Amino acid sequence: MANSDRHNTAVAHVYKGTFVHSTQQTALQILEDALLGVDTEGKIAFIAKGEELEKLTQTFGFTPSEVTQLAQHEFFMPGMIDTHIHASQYSYAGTALDMPLLEWLNTYTFPVESLFNDLEFARKVYNHIVKRTLRNGTTTACYFATIHTDASLLLGEIANKFGQRALVGKVCMDRNKFVEHYKESIQESQDETCRFIKELLNKKYPLVKPVVTPRFAPSCTGALLGQLGAIAKNNNLHIQSHISENVEEVKLVKELFPESESYTDVYHKYNLLTDKTVMAHGCHLSDKELDLFRQTGASLSHCPNSNFSLCSGILNVRNVLEHKVKLGLGTDVAGGYSASMLDAVRKTLDASKVLTIQDREHGTLTFEEVFRLATLGGSQALSLDDRTGNFKVGKDFDALRVNVAAPGGPIDLIQNDEPKILLEKFLNLGDDRNIVEVFVAGRKVVPFTE
Amino acid sequence: MANSDRHNTAVAHVYKGTFVHSTQQTALQILEDALLGVDTEGKIAFIAKGEELEKLTQTFGFTPSEVTQLAQHEFFMPGMIDTHIHASQYSYAGTALDMPLLEWLNTYTFPVESLFNDLEFARKVYNHIVKRTLRNGTTTACYFATIHTDASLLLGEIANKFGQRALVGKVCMDRNKFVEHYKESIQESQDETCRFIKELLNKKYPLVKPVVTPRFAPSCTGALLGQLGAIAKNNNLHIQSHISENVEEVKLVKELFPESESYTDVYHKYNLLTDKTVMAHGCHLSDKELDLFRQTGASLSHCPNSNFSLCSGILNVRNVLEHKVKLGLGTDVAGGYSASMLDAVRKTLDASKVLTIQDREHGTLTFEEVFRLATLGGSQALSLDDRTGNFKVGKDFDALRVNVAAPGGPIDLIQNDEPKILLEKFLNLGDDRNIVEVFVAGRKVVPFTE
Repeated sequence: MANSDRHNTAVAHVYKGTFVHSTQQTALQILEDALLGVDTEGKIAFIAKGEELEKLTQTFGFTPSEVTQLAQHEFFMPGMIDTHIHASQYSYAGTALDMPLLEWLNTYTFPVESLFNDLEFARKVYNHIVKRTLRNGTTTACYFATIHTDASLLLGEIANKFGQRALVGKVCMDRNKFVEHYKESIQESQDETCRFIKELLNKKYPLVKPVVTPRFAPSCTGALLGQLGAIAKNNNLHIQSHISENVEEVKLVKELFPESESYTDVYHKYNLLTDKTVMAHGCHLSDKELDLFRQTGASLSHCPNSNFSLCSGILNVRNVLEHKVKLGLGTDVAGGYSASMLDAVRKTLDASKVLTIQDREHGTLTFEEVFRLATLGGSQALSLDDRTGNFKVGKDFDALRVNVAAPGGPIDLIQNDEPKILLEKFLNLGDDRNIVEVFVAGRKVVPFTE
Repeated sequence: MANSDRHNTAVAHVYKGTFVHSTQQTALQILEDALLGVDTEGKIAFIAKGEELEKLTQTFGFTPSEVTQLAQHEFFMPGMIDTHIHASQYSYAGTALDMPLLEWLNTYTFPVESLFNDLEFARKVYNHIVKRTLRNGTTTACYFATIHTDASLLLGEIANKFGQRALVGKVCMDRNKFVEHYKESIQESQDETCRFIKELLNKKYPLVKPVVTPRFAPSCTGALLGQLGAIAKNNNLHIQSHISENVEEVKLVKELFPESESYTDVYHKYNLLTDKTVMAHGCHLSDKELDLFRQTGASLSHCPNSNFSLCSGILNVRNVLEHKVKLGLGTDVAGGYSASMLDAVRKTLDASKVLTIQDREHGTLTFEEVFRLATLGGSQALSLDDRTGNFKVGKDFDALRVNVAAPGGPIDLIQNDEPKILLEKFLNLGDDRNIVEVFVAGRKVVPFTE
């Protein structure tokens, strides 16, 4: 399309139809018969009403024939954001869910993760998980890899190749009593983290960035935690870890860090709670700990499939939101068996409804609120909400084109064409067959071109 | 194939590969490199080891070239049995899950069900649900229709046409304060139930039978319940209803039937608890009520999606099984949003794990046990275990051919080919794309021929 005189960047694509997304004020905002333009840098250039077409063609220099019109039963929604996923654990997703966290790590997880010193095995698993999550509508993923630097760099390379927005973490752990060969010395962990960060940043991938990743307090000495906090601070980097997933783990942390007042305090002490920190789970955090999250700007990743599957606990999301702590959703593959954020949406609703069964006064989450958590909430939890999370001029166009009535798909549409009903059907019953196109920063990444 | 001298019925098909199923003794029995023969009446003629092929060809008169060999990553499992599903509610499946049971019935359900006096609307919805459940691997369904006799007969016709094994119930209700026009007089209910039974039996569908269906105690007067009990007894028919789904309902039944000791006692008094009765939910039954279920041979249908979605409660399946009450799984469309028994399997595991989160001493169900509930357990709950539920010589061949690595499907297979792992992956991650063929009584019903 022609460059517009009045705009720095030309409009590359214009879409017309229904757009659904969230704002800070409104969990579900529906824009019907809307026009959205994407510039050549993949950013949203304008959002307007259909009737403004003529004016827009002049302002942005395109012709009406260049507008892509959505079909009936189609809508655009923001890409979903998986705030916690172990890419390396995808090889055994959907199996081995018969023990609680600490045993599960020693029995299943550490032995599998140790295999990622083999780059060809890593390539196979990482190709699968990046493609699968993109097909499932995950436009942004916050990944745990393993302790292996080169395999972790490979994960970044693969995410970049397929066009997924990603934070990639080389896992750090200098304590492991159970699988002795799957750990690092404190020096190795520090050196390799620095190498990982440097090499990944040197690639200048536009959408893939490193995240400092202490596995969790029980796997790290205080000295290592302190060094990682310093590395994150000196490089202004994202941080991810786990917290308060199950009660045995909380007890163990108390034993390992007797000087700290709480699990949250351990991370806080080592400068690991910042406004670029996301901590997975938090099922058993006290209100006081939540206050510390709010004060530091750190966020939580709610992973309900994992919390059910490993019998870890049930996070009270309503309480977290009332404490004004940022919160997104995560699949937590493979403690969670599903690599689909739609599953995370459904299980978030289930978890909230279980809390209502237990206490009628519980403020059950609505599907609109959970939709927000899976999109805008996730972007806030990862401090990426200046770039993604909803449809706002200037943000990147990270979007799913959803066809609720996709042929051969899982949804039988019988009665209602109202966008809110279509979205609810999709969230409850849809799958990758309904996600007919996926865009990240304006680039169509699904269907795959190779 | 040629007729065998030594057998009454000729063998029509022989399959070779892995078969997984349940027995009373073993939740998961795996038969690798097995041979299974189906006779011309759709019954299982033999199950044997692969090495016995030559002997079997002689005994049953077929040639090795006629044997269908399963591919790698494929197995056969018994068809799944949905012990509780409202066919008529499928039109709004996946929506309207924001209120508890009694309000939900009045606001969403009764207005929709009342539309089924329109046979063309009924045909549309019933065609969709029968095809959808077959695609999802439901070889047997126990259906609620609506109060409309002709539309209920149509559901039977459609199930027969597509080859699904089904119990079909015309709903009976002579009490409805909220949607006045959606109820019957007691005389209508009795007359129409008799007409429904007579006309459906006259069709002589081989796999579709009527089931006496009082909606639930709050929708029926005692007089109607008594008449329905008598009709069922005089015709030796199946019975289905709901019981003890949520606490408000239990309270209401106490008010409506003050003379009865318990909710279960209401049904028992009116001869509605027999060894051909299945009652949905039962979340809040006392141990004493469970004893009455065991004594009468009545069974429960566990519908965890619905129980979560409507915040009804969480059935303690372990406790039911310890009381030796028969139990199957149900989708309970549309209180449950999913028409897939795979969803019922997953949510049964979730519900059990929630009970473990609440009480570490709870005996969490294993995936193998839940697999049994979805197959053999369901057949027992519907008193159809002489015909279906597992692979046993003389039973009908109701089976799913599962390809865990189906191209374009939801599962990425990376490491392990062990049948138990393949089944677990399928139960957790699979969908209709993995169910490449469905057989009911030996007939291939999926893929559809029309």
